[in-house]
Amino acid sequence: MPGSMSKTSSGRFFEDFDLGEVIVHATPRTVTAGDVALYTALYGSRFAVQSAESFAQAIGYPAMPVDDVLVFHIVFGKTVPDVSLNAVANLGYADGRFLRPVFVGDTLATTSEVIGLKQTSSGDAGIVYVRSIGRNQHHEIVLSYARWVLVRKRHPGTPAHAEQLPDLPVAVLPEELGEGCPPIDLAAYDDALAGSRFRWGDYAAGERIDHVDGVTVEEAEHQLATRLYQNTARVHFDAHAAKGSRFGKRLIYGGHVISLARALSFNGLGNAFHVAAINGGRHVAPLFAGDTVYAWSEVLESAELPGRSDVGALRLRLVATKNLSGAGNPLKDGERYVEGVVLDLDYWALLPR
Amino acid sequence: MPGSMSKTSSGRFFEDFDLGEVIVHATPRTVTAGDVALYTALYGSRFAVQSAESFAQAIGYPAMPVDDVLVFHIVFGKTVPDVSLNAVANLGYADGRFLRPVFVGDTLATTSEVIGLKQTSSGDAGIVYVRSIGRNQHHEIVLSYARWVLVRKRHPGTPAHAEQLPDLPVAVLPEELGEGCPPIDLAAYDDALAGSRFRWGDYAAGERIDHVDGVTVEEAEHQLATRLYQNTARVHFDAHAAKGSRFGKRLIYGGHVISLARALSFNGLGNAFHVAAINGGRHVAPLFAGDTVYAWSEVLESAELPGRSDVGALRLRLVATKNLSGAGNPLKDGERYVEGVVLDLDYWALLPR
Amino acid sequence: MPGSMSKTSSGRFFEDFDLGEVIVHATPRTVTAGDVALYTALYGSRFAVQSAESFAQAIGYPAMPVDDVLVFHIVFGKTVPDVSLNAVANLGYADGRFLRPVFVGDTLATTSEVIGLKQTSSGDAGIVYVRSIGRNQHHEIVLSYARWVLVRKRHPGTPAHAEQLPDLPVAVLPEELGEGCPPIDLAAYDDALAGSRFRWGDYAAGERIDHVDGVTVEEAEHQLATRLYQNTARVHFDAHAAKGSRFGKRLIYGGHVISLARALSFNGLGNAFHVAAINGGRHVAPLFAGDTVYAWSEVLESAELPGRSDVGALRLRLVATKNLSGAGNPLKDGERYVEGVVLDLDYWALLPR
Repeated sequence: MPGSMSKTSSGRFFEDFDLGEVIVHATPRTVTAGDVALYTALYGSRFAVQSAESFAQAIGYPAMPVDDVLVFHIVFGKTVPDVSLNAVANLGYADGRFLRPVFVGDTLATTSEVIGLKQTSSGDAGIVYVRSIGRNQHHEIVLSYARWVLVRKRHPGTPAHAEQLPDLPVAVLPEELGEGCPPIDLAAYDDALAGSRFRWGDYAAGERIDHVDGVTVEEAEHQLATRLYQNTARVHFDAHAAKGSRFGKRLIYGGHVISLARALSFNGLGNAFHVAAINGGRHVAPLFAGDTVYAWSEVLESAELPGRSDVGALRLRLVATKNLSGAGNPLKDGERYVEGVVLDLDYWALLPR
Repeated sequence: MPGSMSKTSSGRFFEDFDLGEVIVHATPRTVTAGDVALYTALYGSRFAVQSAESFAQAIGYPAMPVDDVLVFHIVFGKTVPDVSLNAVANLGYADGRFLRPVFVGDTLATTSEVIGLKQTSSGDAGIVYVRSIGRNQHHEIVLSYARWVLVRKRHPGTPAHAEQLPDLPVAVLPEELGEGCPPIDLAAYDDALAGSRFRWGDYAAGERIDHVDGVTVEEAEHQLATRLYQNTARVHFDAHAAKGSRFGKRLIYGGHVISLARALSFNGLGNAFHVAAINGGRHVAPLFAGDTVYAWSEVLESAELPGRSDVGALRLRLVATKNLSGAGNPLKDGERYVEGVVLDLDYWALLPR
Repeated sequence: MPGSMSKTSSGRFFEDFDLGEVIVHATPRTVTAGDVALYTALYGSRFAVQSAESFAQAIGYPAMPVDDVLVFHIVFGKTVPDVSLNAVANLGYADGRFLRPVFVGDTLATTSEVIGLKQTSSGDAGIVYVRSIGRNQHHEIVLSYARWVLVRKRHPGTPAHAEQLPDLPVAVLPEELGEGCPPIDLAAYDDALAGSRFRWGDYAAGERIDHVDGVTVEEAEHQLATRLYQNTARVHFDAHAAKGSRFGKRLIYGGHVISLARALSFNGLGNAFHVAAINGGRHVAPLFAGDTVYAWSEVLESAELPGRSDVGALRLRLVATKNLSGAGNPLKDGERYVEGVVLDLDYWALLPR
């Protein structure tokens, strides 16, 4: 029936993306106290700034900010129907910057600009690079990040309509950090309530922190999470169709792993309360329900923020593994990640000085 | 112990319903942002009107309205302990009208009037017809619907104490629609943010829309949902007792299927933002955890609303199937539904013109 | 790597607790409408006072209070990283008093004083007694309770550094009840909306009430709940590590059982709207996902509250069983609990007179 095909979106293919095109994504979203509670229930995050109005206000926030990674998921989720419904793989992130805190009651919307296109050597798919921008109801940018995905061609083998690679930084520079964090009143920052006595100056490049705890993931949990973000990627929800797929079962949204690992990282990084930037990230291997996630962090770099004496930045590698406790395991064997690694995330966190 | 039996409710039997009796159901419920977030997490609905305060206010709502089907579940849930605890089957719905938007902070309560009674030919059970009415804290009716269930007799074989069939319409008339929808400012209705460029006039009777996506249901999900609605029907929760039942496992609340199918229908009906009326519905077959739900819609009728040029109505058949992708399958084989159909719902949706 | 070990908390051992020490627990928590909705979805509680703003305000509350047991879980959760991460067993509770209602928007924080220490006869572990106190953002005490846990020694076999047993009451006295409950306007208390016509005077000591319904617990549910309370005890989350443990699988947080049983108890105790005190409690046997929980109550004592004619108190034994319907089963066979009992809780509830 012709009416049917025209009204239902089956997503964009490689040919459907034009360089410089700006896509307005559907379904703006008011973030509520309900979203925040669900995020806590899904990951168990314990950073005091995002958990207690009184703590946040004491140190200088007008109100308890929404967890940065939840903001990321909501902004990201909107891009899925337009960008990655026909994605074969989510290849990477770069230059992600959290530019303004989000509070309960804010309404988020997302646009994406196509900033790069590159077909694969086989010619049956191509890499699409987008810069996605999340804005609040005042049209202020709260998050900006680049992402690239491998997308099927509608007509495999046809020549690429355009090719161009974007210029993306290896990491966000320290002078670009901090816009998403108000001035912090260090005198009011209570280490006991925060749950850690280690501040920015106590961490040094090269230090590795095992986050100890493990958490097993259930189908209902990742489905609830991924729907909360209004992320519609089929691979996360349809076990019936998945039977015929490569893995034979539902795949867990990669962002779910980021949130699990970030929540686990509280044990050892309890004062790393703000994710200021995401430099890059790789979903090294898929995660499935029944797997148990562990995490460890490595301090890659420590940096002052120009003109600020309240907070400092740590560039962290956050590694999540499955069914393999983090302590002491290597990350790679030569060029290859060791078996069990599922996430290798490179981000900047801010801590009180 | 006699004290025990008198204090615990084991529900009403057929003999316990009197024609014309009005039952005041327990536990009024304040709808919160938490309920709304959970509803999103459970179904992934993406209608912009219910998702974004800014979108709702731009087009004429005082605030983001609560999803109509969530309102239905909350109003319905209260009736279960009094009406259907001893129900053998939930047979049908008719004349369901959403008469006023519900907003976060409203408190809903439900009453049911017994409008019909009819014993089965075997004499061991009977059909009870009720008109259930949900009201907000100002005693304004937000939802009114008729429902009939097959209820066991306390004393099988005894004659019916009363019999009378109610007069129920096949469908709500177009002139009865729209009370639950304020005047919509069409100039402010943004198709890109709404996620669909198809408005009321783009749909025609006879058109069938396959909603493409599928979602697998987990025990934890339907239990969370059904408890959120304070629906206490035992068959949804007690796996131990279910071992000895006909299906050997927990049954999923039929309303859960309605919400899943309605959320899936966004893909193809993205502007059908308001459920104005439920004309009828059949839970054709039971759904169990592990099943994957798909959905398709058929436009049964298109109607103008008298005196309104902002919105138009589509009468839609919403069909949910399990483990059977929707595309192109017939609904029935002669008089019988084909294998795999679980829901056949007939409702009116409003769309911007 | 030495940096790692110092920054990650592996919890306290028996030797790390000093008599009289006051521990400030991390992560104060603002209770939101999202927490309340999740609590409803997790347990299906139906007490009108906690469910409807209009009902609560009509009878004398300034707003809908947060469920007392949810308050308990939030206050309790904070103690886990400091008190029971290395606990072998959660042995008991005493003298728990709910001293002030908690409302949405309140921020809760917890401190614990070490009030007793006693090593085991084997010398490889010890019992730690703490008095935990939950306060709101105005530093008012909302909950105070004693708890004792069996904690491993860091160095098994070394002599105890201190030993002293606290003096704890068998039960909270009636004259200590009621601080957490404002004066109730009995004329405004609507039994139909509350869901029960039985008030305080209708119950008598010795009466046993079977709560009829059963609910099967899923892994996703207890994990969501336990994380919502920011309770980090590993045994609830890590299936991978649990494979090598005594039970071979994840254990369900004992508080989850309390909430399940309390919600089931609505059917028979619908007007027992306020938990005023917890006299004691034993988690008799562990609960696992897949188990079905039933509950019954016994009225142990009925008491007036000095100077109050609005509400009366019932001292209740709330027993939860697994895979064994409550009706008519004994609690104990001699000194031992019968197979299937998982919880034996002794608490005071208030009901309207």
